[in-house]
Amino acid sequence: VETLATLARSHRVGAVTNTSAMREREVRELLAPAGLDELLEVLVTSVDAGAAKPDPEPLLQASSRLGVAPARCVFIGDDEIDGTAAASAGMTFVATDRGVRDAMDRLAASREGALADARRALGPLTEAAAAASLEHQDRLTKPAGSLGRLEQLGAQLAAIAGQSPPPEPNPAAVAIFAADHGVATAGVTPWPQEVTAQMVGNFAAGGAAINVIARCTGASVHVVDIGVAADVSGLETVIHRKVREGTADLSRGPAMTIAEAHAALDAGAEVAALLIEQGNAILVTGDMGIGNTTAAAAVIAALTGAQGAAVTGRGTGIDDQTLARKSEIVEAAAERTRGWLDPCSVLAEVGGLDIAGLAGFIIGAAAGGVPVVVDGVITGAALLVAERLAPGVAGRCIAGHLSTEPGASAALQAVGLRPLLDLEMRLGEGTGGALALPVIQASARVLREMATFEQAAVSEREQ
Amino acid sequence: VETLATLARSHRVGAVTNTSAMREREVRELLAPAGLDELLEVLVTSVDAGAAKPDPEPLLQASSRLGVAPARCVFIGDDEIDGTAAASAGMTFVATDRGVRDAMDRLAASREGALADARRALGPLTEAAAAASLEHQDRLTKPAGSLGRLEQLGAQLAAIAGQSPPPEPNPAAVAIFAADHGVATAGVTPWPQEVTAQMVGNFAAGGAAINVIARCTGASVHVVDIGVAADVSGLETVIHRKVREGTADLSRGPAMTIAEAHAALDAGAEVAALLIEQGNAILVTGDMGIGNTTAAAAVIAALTGAQGAAVTGRGTGIDDQTLARKSEIVEAAAERTRGWLDPCSVLAEVGGLDIAGLAGFIIGAAAGGVPVVVDGVITGAALLVAERLAPGVAGRCIAGHLSTEPGASAALQAVGLRPLLDLEMRLGEGTGGALALPVIQASARVLREMATFEQAAVSEREQ
Repeated sequence: VETLATLARSHRVGAVTNTSAMREREVRELLAPAGLDELLEVLVTSVDAGAAKPDPEPLLQASSRLGVAPARCVFIGDDEIDGTAAASAGMTFVATDRGVRDAMDRLAASREGALADARRALGPLTEAAAAASLEHQDRLTKPAGSLGRLEQLGAQLAAIAGQSPPPEPNPAAVAIFAADHGVATAGVTPWPQEVTAQMVGNFAAGGAAINVIARCTGASVHVVDIGVAADVSGLETVIHRKVREGTADLSRGPAMTIAEAHAALDAGAEVAALLIEQGNAILVTGDMGIGNTTAAAAVIAALTGAQGAAVTGRGTGIDDQTLARKSEIVEAAAERTRGWLDPCSVLAEVGGLDIAGLAGFIIGAAAGGVPVVVDGVITGAALLVAERLAPGVAGRCIAGHLSTEPGASAALQAVGLRPLLDLEMRLGEGTGGALALPVIQASARVLREMATFEQAAVSEREQ
Repeated sequence: VETLATLARSHRVGAVTNTSAMREREVRELLAPAGLDELLEVLVTSVDAGAAKPDPEPLLQASSRLGVAPARCVFIGDDEIDGTAAASAGMTFVATDRGVRDAMDRLAASREGALADARRALGPLTEAAAAASLEHQDRLTKPAGSLGRLEQLGAQLAAIAGQSPPPEPNPAAVAIFAADHGVATAGVTPWPQEVTAQMVGNFAAGGAAINVIARCTGASVHVVDIGVAADVSGLETVIHRKVREGTADLSRGPAMTIAEAHAALDAGAEVAALLIEQGNAILVTGDMGIGNTTAAAAVIAALTGAQGAAVTGRGTGIDDQTLARKSEIVEAAAERTRGWLDPCSVLAEVGGLDIAGLAGFIIGAAAGGVPVVVDGVITGAALLVAERLAPGVAGRCIAGHLSTEPGASAALQAVGLRPLLDLEMRLGEGTGGALALPVIQASARVLREMATFEQAAVSEREQ
């Protein structure tokens, strides 16, 4: 009662309950003696709604009766089907599996900051624009369907932009979230941790693979220090958003606090907003951090339910013995968080600051109405978190390239994305995403610039 | 004797023969009474060489004894293993299967013109440059091998250019060979033949898919009228090399004469030389021609030995009934040429002017030392012809995109190429090749522009 009363001061409150027999009136009669009835503005049972969770129908009815759009609703629950129902209904979900106080803290955190703003700003895709684009394709001077995946891609860009033809997604910006990982010292990688900071310097100097590939495809590169375990404040071109100097070793305990995970999520959303404000029309996710494939694999195993071994890869190229150790660490970490419903808790326990930053960045970019090009296993983990925090956000993402890391394909499959390129790369930094930009830009320009049969006076096929 | 005597006036003449018992002296004794012995400068038997055809050893020994490099030798034979042995030895092959006079004509044609010049100019790939590129990759600031196919691609570019790092393959030019096909009237396509000329106008006006995609990836577009069945001479930006106004219907007889096929091959090689002279550093193959997927499938079936149905696709998108008819026509055409050893004869019988032009273009580009980006089923047929005419030329080609046409994969597989992109496109025009350019250019620029571990002061992995 106390909790609900606190909540009711800042929120409209309702309840949705699965019951095989009772209607609203009967449930309210049961709750009345405790004083709960009067705190609930609406109450929908599965009998009332004609459908039980995980069907989103009862939630949607509650939202409708409250007159609050699903995107502005938070659904609090203690079971996995609550999370599924919330996701299907397009609502934010807060789980009470780690205690009601923890859930309330997270609810509070979810109400303020760049991430919360982004989640509130996220609307549905404009399906009508996608349909208009597909229809326009058939009038262009080419056999119907002959541009293959470019045609669907153009329609997706139209749905994201809310107009057909979509604007050309140009200029493009790559954001590399750099962070260190305590688990790097647990024998999961042959690279010394100092390489993270050294590579930040290499990015700033323009000498890394992503700098070259971004130059080839006309994208700008932005490095975000979200958690490098060294002082890189002297590098002027770096966006400084350090949350802490690297995470703790996730094989021994939580990688960071929930507050730190939230801070990194907010920073990511802020960086996306900043790059959009600077005029960028498409954003590409990048990452750098020695040890980060271990954290990514743990998050992917935790959120997809996959076994650790199935999503653990060789990262930068490790031997069989190191792979076995890494795989064990991933499985043990994922096991600690299995069944947790809150993605932020999973992120804090076994994730990384780069992963959190990227999850916020994806949601921020999506909220800003621009497409996000994702690739790699670090981004794959971030994408799973983002999709849990803001259901539907994956529909605003384009998978640029399929990393050879097994976790990358598991993550993309879980959110229903199919990569554009498969060049057997496994470098990260956003290289695969940046390399896909010309394909994505071409899909928009085809819709904008190709002549129709009528315009070019080209005969159409005989029926 | 008369034929050999004629040949000996312009060529050095030798013989290579498979025999299980005889050595040179014994064969010469047998040939002497007819006057053949004195016409043969060298004679190598399989007993002398310690290997029989299709092993290239006897041919290489003859070439070595004559002091003439294999690339400058023509091997004349009447059996498939002669062709195989010639290809393995890096020699041009002329088959006598359609008569000695025909073979002599083809030998004469093979000695003059742009194609002959290109074939003579073709040298081996510089394997040392490829090795140097691969070695340099391991010094760059990234985990070894993490750029996947980009690393092999960079090495191939180095082998083609003969230097490491390779020059950036830029600027790029797309050449679209446009031609009509008599078979278009045989019910294999729902599109009227006039579309070929109309699309030439669309290319010239910049409104076709290839124009848009080439603009996206920074390539110029050049349209070659190699055989459009309409007067397009008024279009100034078109390269006019019309050999005839479309081919004859290949389902009823030869598509063209061998002389016409040679003229188209020469024109293709000339266009490649022209574009290279204009400063282009990489060439992309394109095609346009209503009915051309039928001719391409016939050439692919003939040269790979595949059944017609296995390499016949839906082209622009045809129904089941049309597909069945097309498949029958392909099979019957291929059957007419099965066992023919001379690719020019196959080209003339069941091919097209666009296919012939593209085969010449590929050889011309390769001879000019620039990489050629191939894609699509029409280019696939041309590539098979080019590889037969100039063995090894496929090593200078990069498959840009895998067409959904089944013949395209059969052709690429036959010459050992693996496409970079797979976006389910089936448009032709060079769209798939042009879309792959940024990936190819990136592979060279990575080698030229990335910092090494030493330059960037980045620590290397611990062993």
